[in-house]
Amino acid sequence: MEKISSKNNPLAIHYRKLGTSSNYREKSGEFLCEGEKLLLDALDSDIEVSSILTASHVEVPLSVDTKVYYCEQKLIDSISTLTTAQETLFACKSRTMEPRNFLTGVHLLLDEVQDPGNVGTIMRTANAFGIESIILTKGCADPYNPKTIRASMGAIFRQDFYVKSFEELQDMESSGATFLGAVLEDTNMNIGEIGGFESIIVIGNESRGISSEILSLCKKRVNIPISPSSDSLNAAIAAAIIIWEAAGRIGNREEE
Amino acid sequence: MEKISSKNNPLAIHYRKLGTSSNYREKSGEFLCEGEKLLLDALDSDIEVSSILTASHVEVPLSVDTKVYYCEQKLIDSISTLTTAQETLFACKSRTMEPRNFLTGVHLLLDEVQDPGNVGTIMRTANAFGIESIILTKGCADPYNPKTIRASMGAIFRQDFYVKSFEELQDMESSGATFLGAVLEDTNMNIGEIGGFESIIVIGNESRGISSEILSLCKKRVNIPISPSSDSLNAAIAAAIIIWEAAGRIGNREEE
Repeated sequence: MEKISSKNNPLAIHYRKLGTSSNYREKSGEFLCEGEKLLLDALDSDIEVSSILTASHVEVPLSVDTKVYYCEQKLIDSISTLTTAQETLFACKSRTMEPRNFLTGVHLLLDEVQDPGNVGTIMRTANAFGIESIILTKGCADPYNPKTIRASMGAIFRQDFYVKSFEELQDMESSGATFLGAVLEDTNMNIGEIGGFESIIVIGNESRGISSEILSLCKKRVNIPISPSSDSLNAAIAAAIIIWEAAGRIGNREEE
Repeated sequence: MEKISSKNNPLAIHYRKLGTSSNYREKSGEFLCEGEKLLLDALDSDIEVSSILTASHVEVPLSVDTKVYYCEQKLIDSISTLTTAQETLFACKSRTMEPRNFLTGVHLLLDEVQDPGNVGTIMRTANAFGIESIILTKGCADPYNPKTIRASMGAIFRQDFYVKSFEELQDMESSGATFLGAVLEDTNMNIGEIGGFESIIVIGNESRGISSEILSLCKKRVNIPISPSSDSLNAAIAAAIIIWEAAGRIGNREEE
């Protein structure tokens, strides 16, 4: 049993940087997670947990050779990104996604969705309704930001996601992918028509909506009709309604 | 033009307390809002804006006799509940809701929904889809918490809401109100059946779901079917899907 006590221990420094720097996460190829519930989720998935730091007691299955380090709660508190820290922190290897065919199934494209809570909540919702994958433009919140991870409630380990440049999205469009933009203006497309579609549904930025660049890829546009007294929906809510309709109520098919 | 410079000016102290204390908000009968966009929304609604403090320039319609106070940005920064403050703060009188008949129309009951962001987002979504009113149990986040207000994006001024005790809810049930619980377990009720219902749809607490007390009022229960790999939805997302179905796509009726 290895015990860590110094705030300047290399593992503590590593964790602290993983919690605060997107660049450091990218360079090190790891990300930081907090809490026992999330650890159980991670151990239950294909994710590689590289190390665990806990002020409690953690059971790791024998088949997993992840090293567990022990420390006082105050060291956890000094690393945690939460106001009230949990007792366990752990680092995971960034996920490597399999190449994917974006021409079949329903995918989501998040265009500069900047709030990490929104990105994480959308991941959680997409995962709950069997969306194939999530594509993020480079201006989106980092999927490995601790706030994204927290809001995803474990979906970060299960929901496939890809960061793509505009050029890559253009190539996808040329190869036949259908981009469907969710917009505020009236469109000719009824949201009821999107169920079962093979498409990439685009959700725009919280205040600006979909960028004109990405909008140029959207041959089809769909509007969620809202009351005239209200001017927009939260991005994660708009995504949820579209996911719900597009997924054709996955899991409920026998009842339909 | 009245200028305020001291951090200890009574208005600055009043605003600071409104931003941080739910008790003080209740005692004073006012709440704090931030930002010019929200001010326009407030002036456009029936809400009474009691005072405005700005480091910018604010135009108030002649018909409104709200006093505008000017100050340096650093005073705003010292009051704001945001990391990056806007230029304008204002206080509003708490809303007085008209008595309402909960036996007709679709209402939402939030049972100890504790995250103010969730309560505000649910208000925004309910307002966008014409939900009659929102009922909050006493354990919910304060609707006048600055985080609730921010997430509501102005719906706080337009969406009617009521805080009710369990005894009042029991009385409503005895008078014939139908409570419909959104639960994680399988139920006999297909979510497609809830459209157009006259009912009070119950959304539970983020981690515990609906309390057994409130569940005892729910003669009907409805489940949102999700993928087995996912264990729940965010409370605001679950509410949105139910609101979307229940509201029968208000505003889109001509297309159906």
